[in-house]
Amino acid sequence: MKFNIVNEDSTTKARAGVLETARGIIETPIFMPVGTQATVKNVNQQQLANQIQAQIILANTYHVYLRPGLEVLQAAGGVHQFMNWNKPMLTDSGGFQVFSLNDIRKITEEGVEFKSHIDGSKHFFSPERAMDIQRIIGADIIMAFDECTPYPCEYDYAKKSMHLTHRWLKRCIKQVDETQALYGFNQELFPIVQGSVYKDLRTESAQFIAEQDRAGNAIGGLSVGEPAEDMYEMTEHVCSILPHNKPRYLMGVGTPENILTCIELGVDMFDCVMPTRNARHGFIFTSQGIVNIKNKKWQFDFSPLDEQFTPDYSKAYLRHLIHVGENLGAQIASNQNLSFYLWLVKEARKHIIAGDFVTWKKNTLEIITRRL
Amino acid sequence: MKFNIVNEDSTTKARAGVLETARGIIETPIFMPVGTQATVKNVNQQQLANQIQAQIILANTYHVYLRPGLEVLQAAGGVHQFMNWNKPMLTDSGGFQVFSLNDIRKITEEGVEFKSHIDGSKHFFSPERAMDIQRIIGADIIMAFDECTPYPCEYDYAKKSMHLTHRWLKRCIKQVDETQALYGFNQELFPIVQGSVYKDLRTESAQFIAEQDRAGNAIGGLSVGEPAEDMYEMTEHVCSILPHNKPRYLMGVGTPENILTCIELGVDMFDCVMPTRNARHGFIFTSQGIVNIKNKKWQFDFSPLDEQFTPDYSKAYLRHLIHVGENLGAQIASNQNLSFYLWLVKEARKHIIAGDFVTWKKNTLEIITRRL
Repeated sequence: MKFNIVNEDSTTKARAGVLETARGIIETPIFMPVGTQATVKNVNQQQLANQIQAQIILANTYHVYLRPGLEVLQAAGGVHQFMNWNKPMLTDSGGFQVFSLNDIRKITEEGVEFKSHIDGSKHFFSPERAMDIQRIIGADIIMAFDECTPYPCEYDYAKKSMHLTHRWLKRCIKQVDETQALYGFNQELFPIVQGSVYKDLRTESAQFIAEQDRAGNAIGGLSVGEPAEDMYEMTEHVCSILPHNKPRYLMGVGTPENILTCIELGVDMFDCVMPTRNARHGFIFTSQGIVNIKNKKWQFDFSPLDEQFTPDYSKAYLRHLIHVGENLGAQIASNQNLSFYLWLVKEARKHIIAGDFVTWKKNTLEIITRRL
Repeated sequence: MKFNIVNEDSTTKARAGVLETARGIIETPIFMPVGTQATVKNVNQQQLANQIQAQIILANTYHVYLRPGLEVLQAAGGVHQFMNWNKPMLTDSGGFQVFSLNDIRKITEEGVEFKSHIDGSKHFFSPERAMDIQRIIGADIIMAFDECTPYPCEYDYAKKSMHLTHRWLKRCIKQVDETQALYGFNQELFPIVQGSVYKDLRTESAQFIAEQDRAGNAIGGLSVGEPAEDMYEMTEHVCSILPHNKPRYLMGVGTPENILTCIELGVDMFDCVMPTRNARHGFIFTSQGIVNIKNKKWQFDFSPLDEQFTPDYSKAYLRHLIHVGENLGAQIASNQNLSFYLWLVKEARKHIIAGDFVTWKKNTLEIITRRL
């Protein structure tokens, strides 16, 4: 995996890069649509590649581990083959989902025992196991097995948890370095900075992660309910410590405004369920502002949902579809929101290269955050 | 509207035709995907035109009358504009759905009073009103307001109901002939033959309908639970009475076998929710036979769902999607089943023209009705 910075903004930390993976090139900054169960909800793979122009997508280890399960994924030749997606993919480690199962998990130094939310069956994830599973899934970028602390989080717990995450990271690295990719495509491990909203912990964690010298690095434990200012402060701080010449992935972020601001702070990669989840609830991002399509004001508005991304369907039609619960509504809305997100990061990149990122960002945010 | 018969099968009543409507040409025999609420479930309009190659679709008057409602449809310039579908469309009269509301309707000579299944609000459909509503919806082919008798149905009720349908037809015709299409595209009224499974009633009804000399004619009241043999017998009998030079539409039919058999009996047009409804339940029609995708046997089958229609997704992947309830499963399955149905009638037409329809039908049915 190679990462080249094409251009850096002169007044901020924003940078435009090219990340080369075994399955193709990713132009950064980039947004990764979330394909939890080996499908980006309501969107097919042709739409994903051609209309949305996704360059990399994400799948959730916990979910695909449970269903279809590792036997199926291994027999398929990995998740790419299974779902017919030939571009890059990233998997989380399963940690985030497992730790969300509050009542049905048990954490030890060794790892986490948990019960499936589907059938209650018992499972055990350790750092080694999380690596082995991600080998079988076969994503191009795989994530370290960490504990993502909730918000708010006591200082002592955050510190203890961070050290556990660091010890687990060493085990992840050992396991990955002693094993091979299964399908002929190289897989790179990204470690994850933790430390909640405590600057000294973030410093320690970022330094520790930087020292591991992996192909890319991630920032975890943010966008979990903390104020945006805390998220920005931690992100800025961590970016200042993480290596300049490696891609930085801010996990689970966020709104269009969050993304543009964190690009400005030096982040290269993002993922979030927001565009697809909001789409299903009729909350639409457009190049002209935000549309709550359930609002009665759109009932007679026959103008295109978005001239740029959805010229074929009107606001009134989408409102009808979502109102009556037809899946085409979710399909149109998801395509729209993801097209918008991918457009947004592509434009950001263009303006980082053109040298007018800050002006563009200010003007763009004014337009796209309007409530139409 | 013009109907030209291109070729007739020498040994059966099957015929290949071309139906010219204000919005384009339909090659018959044809299958019409059902777009109940101004959307063919789980399929977008591009897929419908390009992948499935639908030439005409159906919308349900009762449903679009309630939501989005006539004000919206009229302001949109009709349902075509509203949903962005530029090819031909047919609407039923709303009668079938209204009569299905057993507990919440009241039939009189004047029409039917019913309560909305959505909010309980009271509505009244008469023959005149059904025509006016279909004028507002704007479909190219509009259907007479009839009573579709259930199965089984007492002879006396079937007879009484049929006469009511005939009296209502005269009122439909008067209303249509005294009004104009609203959006500049001609609309043609098809009357409907009723008479349950009673041959003498069917004779009387078919003769009455034939005498009205409309642009096309429909056969209703079948595929409502009667044995297939009764359906075939009634269809054959009615086709022998209805004008040869007008298209014949058999409402609500059916399985691939039903369709091929009724083509053989002289039917030109079909509609049915089967391909889309079965798709959602994982019951897939393929060019090689029937696949119940929920079956465990497909768990490790990574061959394409159908080489011809769905080369991009495997059986194992579709099984996973439907198993976990992801909408992409319904999308893929619906595209597959509708593509199959449209292919089936297109092939039938080709072989009617080539002169080997009977042999082709026999061989094809052997293959496509296999349980894989």
